[in-house]
Amino acid sequence: MIERPGTGGELPLSGDLNSFPVARRVNSFQAVAMDDDMEGGNLGPYQDRPRTFPNMRTKPYTPMIFRLLMRINIRVRLVLLLIGLGAIFYIGARTSPIIVLVFSICIISFLVSIYLYKWVLSKDEGPPEMAQISDAIRDGAEGFFRTQYGTISKMAVLLGLVIFSIYMFRSTNPHQESSGVGRATSAYITVVAFFLGALCSGIAGYVGMWVSVRANVRVSSAARRSAREALQIAVRAGGFSALVVVGMAVVGIAILYATFYVLLEVDTPGAMKVTELPLLLVGYGFGASFVALFAQLGGGIFTKAADVGADLVGKVEQGIPEDDPRNPAVIADLVGDNVGDCAARGADLFESIAAEIISAMILGGTMAKRCKIEDPSGFILFPLVVHSFDLVISSVGIFSIRNTRDSVVLGAIEDPMAILQKGYSVTIVLAVLTFGLSTRWMLYTEEAPSAWMNFALCGLVGIMTAYAFVLITKYYTDYKHEPVRSLALSSATGHGTNIIAGVSLGLESTALPVLVISVSIISAYWLGQTSGLVDESGSPTGGLFGTAVATMGMLSTAAYVLTMDMFGPIADNAGGIVEMSQQPESVREITDLLDAVGNTTKATTKGFAIGSAALASFLLFSAYMDEVASFANVPFNQVDIAIPEVFVGGLLGSMLIFLFSAWACSAVGRTAQEVVNEVRRQFIERPGIMDYKEKPDYSRCVSIVASASLREMIKPGALAIISPIAVGFLFRVLGYYTGQPLLGAKVVCSMLMFATVSGILMALFLNTSGGAWDNAKKYIETGVLGGKGSECHKAAVTGDTVGDPFKDTAGPSLHVLIKMLATITLVMAPIFL
Amino acid sequence: MIERPGTGGELPLSGDLNSFPVARRVNSFQAVAMDDDMEGGNLGPYQDRPRTFPNMRTKPYTPMIFRLLMRINIRVRLVLLLIGLGAIFYIGARTSPIIVLVFSICIISFLVSIYLYKWVLSKDEGPPEMAQISDAIRDGAEGFFRTQYGTISKMAVLLGLVIFSIYMFRSTNPHQESSGVGRATSAYITVVAFFLGALCSGIAGYVGMWVSVRANVRVSSAARRSAREALQIAVRAGGFSALVVVGMAVVGIAILYATFYVLLEVDTPGAMKVTELPLLLVGYGFGASFVALFAQLGGGIFTKAADVGADLVGKVEQGIPEDDPRNPAVIADLVGDNVGDCAARGADLFESIAAEIISAMILGGTMAKRCKIEDPSGFILFPLVVHSFDLVISSVGIFSIRNTRDSVVLGAIEDPMAILQKGYSVTIVLAVLTFGLSTRWMLYTEEAPSAWMNFALCGLVGIMTAYAFVLITKYYTDYKHEPVRSLALSSATGHGTNIIAGVSLGLESTALPVLVISVSIISAYWLGQTSGLVDESGSPTGGLFGTAVATMGMLSTAAYVLTMDMFGPIADNAGGIVEMSQQPESVREITDLLDAVGNTTKATTKGFAIGSAALASFLLFSAYMDEVASFANVPFNQVDIAIPEVFVGGLLGSMLIFLFSAWACSAVGRTAQEVVNEVRRQFIERPGIMDYKEKPDYSRCVSIVASASLREMIKPGALAIISPIAVGFLFRVLGYYTGQPLLGAKVVCSMLMFATVSGILMALFLNTSGGAWDNAKKYIETGVLGGKGSECHKAAVTGDTVGDPFKDTAGPSLHVLIKMLATITLVMAPIFL
Repeated sequence: MIERPGTGGELPLSGDLNSFPVARRVNSFQAVAMDDDMEGGNLGPYQDRPRTFPNMRTKPYTPMIFRLLMRINIRVRLVLLLIGLGAIFYIGARTSPIIVLVFSICIISFLVSIYLYKWVLSKDEGPPEMAQISDAIRDGAEGFFRTQYGTISKMAVLLGLVIFSIYMFRSTNPHQESSGVGRATSAYITVVAFFLGALCSGIAGYVGMWVSVRANVRVSSAARRSAREALQIAVRAGGFSALVVVGMAVVGIAILYATFYVLLEVDTPGAMKVTELPLLLVGYGFGASFVALFAQLGGGIFTKAADVGADLVGKVEQGIPEDDPRNPAVIADLVGDNVGDCAARGADLFESIAAEIISAMILGGTMAKRCKIEDPSGFILFPLVVHSFDLVISSVGIFSIRNTRDSVVLGAIEDPMAILQKGYSVTIVLAVLTFGLSTRWMLYTEEAPSAWMNFALCGLVGIMTAYAFVLITKYYTDYKHEPVRSLALSSATGHGTNIIAGVSLGLESTALPVLVISVSIISAYWLGQTSGLVDESGSPTGGLFGTAVATMGMLSTAAYVLTMDMFGPIADNAGGIVEMSQQPESVREITDLLDAVGNTTKATTKGFAIGSAALASFLLFSAYMDEVASFANVPFNQVDIAIPEVFVGGLLGSMLIFLFSAWACSAVGRTAQEVVNEVRRQFIERPGIMDYKEKPDYSRCVSIVASASLREMIKPGALAIISPIAVGFLFRVLGYYTGQPLLGAKVVCSMLMFATVSGILMALFLNTSGGAWDNAKKYIETGVLGGKGSECHKAAVTGDTVGDPFKDTAGPSLHVLIKMLATITLVMAPIFL
Repeated sequence: MIERPGTGGELPLSGDLNSFPVARRVNSFQAVAMDDDMEGGNLGPYQDRPRTFPNMRTKPYTPMIFRLLMRINIRVRLVLLLIGLGAIFYIGARTSPIIVLVFSICIISFLVSIYLYKWVLSKDEGPPEMAQISDAIRDGAEGFFRTQYGTISKMAVLLGLVIFSIYMFRSTNPHQESSGVGRATSAYITVVAFFLGALCSGIAGYVGMWVSVRANVRVSSAARRSAREALQIAVRAGGFSALVVVGMAVVGIAILYATFYVLLEVDTPGAMKVTELPLLLVGYGFGASFVALFAQLGGGIFTKAADVGADLVGKVEQGIPEDDPRNPAVIADLVGDNVGDCAARGADLFESIAAEIISAMILGGTMAKRCKIEDPSGFILFPLVVHSFDLVISSVGIFSIRNTRDSVVLGAIEDPMAILQKGYSVTIVLAVLTFGLSTRWMLYTEEAPSAWMNFALCGLVGIMTAYAFVLITKYYTDYKHEPVRSLALSSATGHGTNIIAGVSLGLESTALPVLVISVSIISAYWLGQTSGLVDESGSPTGGLFGTAVATMGMLSTAAYVLTMDMFGPIADNAGGIVEMSQQPESVREITDLLDAVGNTTKATTKGFAIGSAALASFLLFSAYMDEVASFANVPFNQVDIAIPEVFVGGLLGSMLIFLFSAWACSAVGRTAQEVVNEVRRQFIERPGIMDYKEKPDYSRCVSIVASASLREMIKPGALAIISPIAVGFLFRVLGYYTGQPLLGAKVVCSMLMFATVSGILMALFLNTSGGAWDNAKKYIETGVLGGKGSECHKAAVTGDTVGDPFKDTAGPSLHVLIKMLATITLVMAPIFL
């Protein structure tokens, strides 16, 4: 039976969570059974079974770092906080006034996010049956999180040691050497940055999950009163984690930058130049993407294995609805939404932003050096400022979604999508304004007085690209448009034609985004190139920085987009809780509506994520090439694929994407088969389940999925990390024996570029086909082509099942993979030389 | 009713075809109905329906070129033939003794192929019901062929005109200009070569289909007597078309080469150098690949739309066996095997060999020029010699499969795969020997006395690569091995997990082939580079030619591989005829066995085709770069993807592959839906079909599929042809305005390379997953996991259905696409400059 595993007093962070005394909480399943006039006594034999999930703890889990903080006296904590803030502002002030501004904005937005979570937690948890389900979900999610991040941290420590030894034995970087940064210093710096990045990425994931397992039940409860209130709670919960994630990325990099600036006495005579400082930050990006990769893989496998397993037996074989309490895998499915979508997406966007800030800083520094700009700090710190403003404008967007009094009446449903879109429009308009202002402020130089205008246009290109991606994704995945409708139609002729049509749709949907990205890259490059910035020899040189600015423009609304994305799984979970606690039809209608909107926002966010990855890819290549040139002390600005080894590197890079996707999908397939067998077993061994006479063993499904997904995430993750290192090292040795200098670095670069191109296409294919299958099923469920239960619907469910690992495991993992490849090559560059 | 459409006298090429008088032929369906003790009178109302397929002719079809030849008096024909041969040998002798040798071998192998078809046609056609079904298949196939090639030839004429005008207005090639080959001459040469290539490719396709529609019934008939005899007939029929296809590719290029040599007075003072002659042949390769692309697309869509449609209603919905006469789409399915597999694969391999011979000749010429080798003709003509020897050794392999007398007894079934493998081993051993001899003979130069040994080793690398590809494909698609078995197991948990597992398997299967190809490219390049051949400045220069020789090595058994491939659809068709004519179980067992072997050989041939395409890709890029350098008169030996436009070209190239695959698959899906609706309609409107009381309208299905596939082949085909031209031209203009010389050519080259890499991976994915799904279904049909009719089998059939367009439409079309992109860029190079 699902029972509240601990007493309320043990929940340290949630004051309002225990408004219902434990004694009042009756077993929800029992309640359901009684509703259906079944004998409660039938449940007797099962009451002596273990009451909590095996392999999971019985009290709410708080990560060690928070527990340590909590043990300290509140006054001491306050003093420590003040000292910390003082230190940060002190080093910030010694570095640049821009850093002080960035710190201030980040601290304000952390305060805003604290307001948001207080506001969310102040909402009621609804009736006891809801709270109990929510507790079960929270326990499952936190238990998995703890085990998963335990594994990840062990791997991170190991990798940290590897990086340390590589840097201790590497060929030294002459620039750094001359400025007194020796091997040991640079090894310490890189490893510290790596661990900080990994830690922040972990916290980003934790925060995403933490708020979502608490907001879900509050959204369900609010749905009994008003659609608008439910929407507002979900949005604000999402907004909380979005602000924390983006703020942490910015503040982490700013602190590292300022600390290194002060410690290494940058820009004093004989010391390092400020333009070389960003190269020291690459460890942070790699740490972030390392954790994000495993978070996304583990979470993605968990959520989709549970979902696919639950659907295959529940919907297809037994014909019971989604999230029906009789399905033994339903709690695992709901847990999955939190660990897969919330935690993983938090870590994913954290590393996206971190990686892109760092590479833009590297590029800005290189360009400023090449153009001999007097004060290069504007070019280097520009990305931090853009993302600080992102925090401000996204907060405005989040607060623009309000609980207007007129729509409080139950049933007065507006289109939630329109409300979210309105908020997005507000944010975009503000983004255009603030972007223009910050380019004028940061990128104005005497050398090229009109350059800032060109860069402002680059930013506009980025913002428009983001918008185009959102539109294209909507066209291919929304059932208001032709593609999904004809996909639904193809289900009428069977499972086979449905799959063929879905695969074709996904493959076809790669075309428009690629055209958009191509136009963006070329136009941003051209705008940068004609900005008037010239290098020593007088040739124009701002092109790459132009694409960097476009990427920043694309990401200038990241916090709002992340909010919309986080909204999805919270609404999904709320719907599950409403279904499981057997609420009236009208409540379900509200959560179904929110869930459907959540599906669309999730799909569009993926489009956004892949678009920014694509645009940033060029940035990351260039940062890598700058890094190699700086280490090798020779120019490195060509990747000539007419050299056979370099071409082979590309072949291997593309193959890596295919193999990684294969392993990610098959992990879900294998785990789902275990779930199917377990659910079938339970239905056979406990025939009373279908009549609500017996209680399914939810916990077994959760623990099966948890252990399987931890096991399965290792193989693709290890592939992604080991293969670029192995290829680079191998070709370095080959180059040494065949007399080709820099061969390893060149091959890795070509591997990176081909992997990026294939990764973008594969991710677009997987995300779009998955989303389209999902919505084709939803379209049929609206009653067309026979509606629920028809043969056509069954075929559509098969498509949805296939799409699940595509869109929520392999696809999003590929986003992370693309950027992790870039950061790993940046960090590992010394061993390719 | 199916009736013999014409009288025997109108069949000009088949003496033995009419051994059964028309009067004795009773309607096979009637025969079946009477077997089942049904009233023949029920068929009455349908006897006044059109007795032949609408939109198709009623007498055997012979292409115009053959009809014209047939009208001429036999003696005149003989004289014309002798004059033709004389002319050929005359220009051959004036060119090089090597050409004379090539001509002689080709003529001998044409004589051998004539012997083979006489032998096949001398076999009996079996009982009348078999012959009637075979006639219906032949009519359908020839009707479709005629309409399809009519469309293709119109497009070819149009494209020829476009090429002509491009060459008339192009920037001239200074080398050619100085040697007296002006714009007009080069325009005529290219267009004539284009048309000749297109014509030969068409003939290759026709020959493949021509023999297969005649051999199928003879195999069925022989299967009543002996498995070995049936196998032998199928192999010899396949061997006939293989010899014709390969021979025609060789002789076509040799004739063109010799003609241009003589006409342009090559190697006389002031005229063109022989090392530049191969560049004039590119039109031939493009013509061949142009026709092959549309042949493969049209045929692939036809065969799989019919197959998927027939399976979805027949097997899944109605539960009747494959090729059951009650299924209205069964004849369309059998027709599809001939037009899709035989005709299309013939054209495909023809263009593979042609494109690869030409690019190797270009490379050989360039290298000989760079190394100042005195007599470069050995390096240029080497590919022709290799393929001539291929004809000889493959003939030996084909004849090694004999009808030993001890196995004549019906039921004494040996493993046909072992027999085919033995023949392959014979061929491979001979290939190694002849390859070593021909390298010594052709590639020995005074400048580098040991170079030929390195090149012989390159050939060995190629042969081993071919073998490795065959092994890997077998591992992933044969149900004796782990992958297909676990795919079958995943069907037990439903349609969804089956598809997920199949997709993962296909994606994973790309890894090993890519590793093999990577090792081959690098080692062949390295062997070539260390061969001792040096250019003027003394740096080693044989690397690219090394990869060219490896490609030749890989293709040195092409004729035997093509024989094994052609064997597949003939056996498949024979099985269909046996099933439809309701032969005893023992006969079916034999054809089922041959069919299963055919599936494996088909899959391995695809591995072989994609492997050779991958190895040749590098060759084709280099040929293109040589061509551009020669036209632009500046060195062009770098493709730097760090230039944004060049990178964008790569992005577009990869996208092209995804979009092309999408359109190819969705064409099948859409057409299959039409078939499903038609078959369902017939089952509803004629309820007697299921009890053999009513005759299904086979012809309607054939004409639906035929017209749909002609319509659907245009979109992907046009995409493949137009996009490289459009991209190259666009970036040429962009380069002009941004001051980047050769930008168009560079972007196209990067597009070509990325498309090749993505194409190889995508084709491997599609072919392998399709083959694995097919064999997982066959594995379940052997009785495991519930066997035929179980839920597990249904899920496996869904997988098979999805795999059909993957492995037989999109996958093989991608092989052609990759090479067509290379030839189109070769021909269109002038407009990118």
